[in-house]
Amino acid sequence: MIPLGGIGEIGRNMTVFELDGKILVVDCGVLFPEEHQPGVDVILPDFGYLRDRMQDVVGIVLTHGHEDHIGGVPYLLRLREDIPIFGSALTLAFIVSKLKEHRITAQTQVVAEGQRVKIADFDLEFIAVNHSIPDALAVLIRTSAGSVLHTGDFKMDQLPLDGRLTDLRAFSRIGEEGLDLFLCDSTNADVPGFTPLEKDIGPVIENVISRSKGRVVVASFSSHIHRVQQVVDAALANNRKVALVGRSMVKNMQIASELGYLKAEPETFVDLKNAISMPQDQVVYMSTGSQGEPMAVLSRMVNLEHEIEIGQGDTVILASSLIPGNENAVYRVIDGLTKLGANVVHKGNAKVHVSGHAAAGELLYCYNILKPKNVMPVHGEYRHLIANGNLAQQTGVPSERVLITEDGWVVDLVAGKADIVGAVECGLLYVDGKTVGKITEDDLKDRRILAQEGFISIFCVIDAQTGRIASGPEIRARAFAEADHVFDDVKPLIERAMAEAAAEGIRDTYAMQQVIRRTIGTWVAKAHRRRPMIIPVVITY
Amino acid sequence: MIPLGGIGEIGRNMTVFELDGKILVVDCGVLFPEEHQPGVDVILPDFGYLRDRMQDVVGIVLTHGHEDHIGGVPYLLRLREDIPIFGSALTLAFIVSKLKEHRITAQTQVVAEGQRVKIADFDLEFIAVNHSIPDALAVLIRTSAGSVLHTGDFKMDQLPLDGRLTDLRAFSRIGEEGLDLFLCDSTNADVPGFTPLEKDIGPVIENVISRSKGRVVVASFSSHIHRVQQVVDAALANNRKVALVGRSMVKNMQIASELGYLKAEPETFVDLKNAISMPQDQVVYMSTGSQGEPMAVLSRMVNLEHEIEIGQGDTVILASSLIPGNENAVYRVIDGLTKLGANVVHKGNAKVHVSGHAAAGELLYCYNILKPKNVMPVHGEYRHLIANGNLAQQTGVPSERVLITEDGWVVDLVAGKADIVGAVECGLLYVDGKTVGKITEDDLKDRRILAQEGFISIFCVIDAQTGRIASGPEIRARAFAEADHVFDDVKPLIERAMAEAAAEGIRDTYAMQQVIRRTIGTWVAKAHRRRPMIIPVVITY
Repeated sequence: MIPLGGIGEIGRNMTVFELDGKILVVDCGVLFPEEHQPGVDVILPDFGYLRDRMQDVVGIVLTHGHEDHIGGVPYLLRLREDIPIFGSALTLAFIVSKLKEHRITAQTQVVAEGQRVKIADFDLEFIAVNHSIPDALAVLIRTSAGSVLHTGDFKMDQLPLDGRLTDLRAFSRIGEEGLDLFLCDSTNADVPGFTPLEKDIGPVIENVISRSKGRVVVASFSSHIHRVQQVVDAALANNRKVALVGRSMVKNMQIASELGYLKAEPETFVDLKNAISMPQDQVVYMSTGSQGEPMAVLSRMVNLEHEIEIGQGDTVILASSLIPGNENAVYRVIDGLTKLGANVVHKGNAKVHVSGHAAAGELLYCYNILKPKNVMPVHGEYRHLIANGNLAQQTGVPSERVLITEDGWVVDLVAGKADIVGAVECGLLYVDGKTVGKITEDDLKDRRILAQEGFISIFCVIDAQTGRIASGPEIRARAFAEADHVFDDVKPLIERAMAEAAAEGIRDTYAMQQVIRRTIGTWVAKAHRRRPMIIPVVITY
Repeated sequence: MIPLGGIGEIGRNMTVFELDGKILVVDCGVLFPEEHQPGVDVILPDFGYLRDRMQDVVGIVLTHGHEDHIGGVPYLLRLREDIPIFGSALTLAFIVSKLKEHRITAQTQVVAEGQRVKIADFDLEFIAVNHSIPDALAVLIRTSAGSVLHTGDFKMDQLPLDGRLTDLRAFSRIGEEGLDLFLCDSTNADVPGFTPLEKDIGPVIENVISRSKGRVVVASFSSHIHRVQQVVDAALANNRKVALVGRSMVKNMQIASELGYLKAEPETFVDLKNAISMPQDQVVYMSTGSQGEPMAVLSRMVNLEHEIEIGQGDTVILASSLIPGNENAVYRVIDGLTKLGANVVHKGNAKVHVSGHAAAGELLYCYNILKPKNVMPVHGEYRHLIANGNLAQQTGVPSERVLITEDGWVVDLVAGKADIVGAVECGLLYVDGKTVGKITEDDLKDRRILAQEGFISIFCVIDAQTGRIASGPEIRARAFAEADHVFDDVKPLIERAMAEAAAEGIRDTYAMQQVIRRTIGTWVAKAHRRRPMIIPVVITY
């Protein structure tokens, strides 16, 4: 078994199971870049290990429809399009819609909880789990080498909106049968206690709407169908229609309605265009953009670039988490909306969000019911994995049977014992524009330097005969924060250095460029205490 | 009265009071840049308004020694060095030490709580307030136009370590005398209840240390002398010496010890060098770097670049807040230390930090005791100002007497009424390297583009006679994430476009550069779906 992503990070989840030369993939998601990875669109699991093995891949199992579990599938299928994909009805609807945009037609097979499916010699059983998207599945993989339970993402809401509980009866059966290896969601392992009920959010939202006389905008994740359901119900209870706002919100709710996951009469909804011309106390806008994304609905409202014009007496509810790294952007949105006159309700001042992941208290139940022989915490940053492993140990799993791994580490399961036996190369695969894996860490380092310091480029035409400057130096600087005339000081220095180089008989372009680089580098460090990128170009003529 | 910083932001606090042509400045701090302001060192209040009025400035009052209140002083004094500075003993010790580094000798006058000082026609009274740095002062400014109380930063810890309470008796006297305008710290106005006691942190830290058998590192802000005092006491209680780590920690604690704010025998401390060679269960390292700053102690430990080598069984305590925007960096440090084997204790899993600012419950006390005629919330982002204003209104201040302002807005106090009467220009003054105010928003936009997309520069030598390319195009790209050969496709396009331009008789350098820019811009958008910065340079020869 090899995790190719998702260990030591929250995102790009992908695990590879190998048995008698056949490969089963569980999940294939994306990771969103941080501020030190500028310009990167998304980050993929490192498929490198599979590149020459694509014919051995017998299937892809998707545990649920979140981007960090399905977002990488289109890129993987570019390597081989006809790999069969298994998942629940909603999960497959989401991935099929996504693949369509990439012009890929996939082979899919719907599975449901309780169902058993044999793929090569992998004997799979699917188990219902509860999460912040409906229709999530855990998967039990029975093999001749032993059994593995992969939870996917889950929590144990005991009063879920759809009544679909994490199936502890199935967990009990599996425990009694004997579980060799337990791969368990670590996201909230360091959060004590229990994740509160999703259904407690509805009344809070309904109450806020009932006290609102103006426009109401609710923002959340577009895949969180139960959250949207509660907003829809709260809107109806207040005699308001619902306008869906944002491309993914519209698309996902269409899928969810067609499949029956979102329960609402068609007349509940109103087009954005019509909504805007209605009396504003008769509509609720259900929108994306809860993370302060600069191009999303909420940010555009703040910048007065959206057709929904927020003003005095309006209410905006951020019914969402605050993903670490997004704080500044989200607070900018909250401040901007407040400044426009809106009352902004968010998880900082009201109970309008609960997590989708099991907290420590819930995880302890799982360990006690399953009594796994080996445990490997997955889906978490390092501190989460450690916290999850500690929970396992507290329920009696011996410390040497708790595997804290990294992306690319190879885990072997033999005779009831899982051990780390090696590692494959596993880096970060960056998507930028049309390119996949073309951006390197060096490029990102260049980007960070350019962002911090800007650049200076220097062009010289050199007389091939004499080696002296025939034209130039022309100097262009950007983001260097200085007027062009500052370079008047350094031009004579370059001219002198080049004349000396010419006198020494230097005619090689690269060597002349180095002379320029050194001269301007020394000058700029001393005169400006700055270290911009320096790009000398010499053409001999 | 004009706030030149600190309104709508937490940082660069500076307020200007003007009376009969004389100007009094209260505080002059820095703001730390966010991720959309790359390469900026710090941001200053916009002094522009004062530039031609420096001879009218009669004094600078510093409420306390934090960077966001004193960090801008060296830059202001560059405009006029001999402005008298007033502040408490500790505050002045901090600013004098800072000015020394800038090679500025300041005129300072120590003031203390209870003291009255007349500066021009400003009649000042200083009042003790409690904050996360000792010796903080509020200032009451009595003038012929009315009285103004500026809290500076404060909270109302009722059992402070040094017994120095926020002086509510003085607030009561001022309230009875009649207060015209109240400028009040808004930082925690949206936090319900009361800030917990600082002294409750000590026992938690002591307990963690007592259970630690290996190295113990505690990180906090180097100006938080009471926090350091509690760590020192906890170390002594566990028979450990204290090694101060980080330049500012060493410097500030030296000042604090000399002035008697930090109470510890000299033999309590041990040099870092000696500490490292001691048995590690006999020392506590008191360090900076609690915000995950890349070059600070904690990050260097994670990267194995620090002489303190963290390993299995060690303990690291982050006894500090998590400033919004720093989350990713701090979690990277926590994960890195965990990976090295350390037990990391932080405010997410233990009570090792309390805020330095008054929460809503405390602010209500102030409003009820002072009963100010006019209120202007300061020191906060927009949502904090609004929350603070709402608290004032709930205690009976009429809404029209609550002034929600912005940086640069002019507030006039006449006959007991404060009103917004205008605005002066007030932008963000960026410091970068040696430059102050040279970086513009355009430069920052360039930096963001360079970070996201990189750049392509194209260099051509043009025959002045024919207008045709004599040499080149030479193309250099950085951070564009492509091998150089990708430009093989576009070179013929440039050559063709330039030949056409030459045939049309175009000889102007700028026009030829525009031809190149258009050609390569169209190509890169289509072929790579990217929008790098494009820098064409044409030299005619």
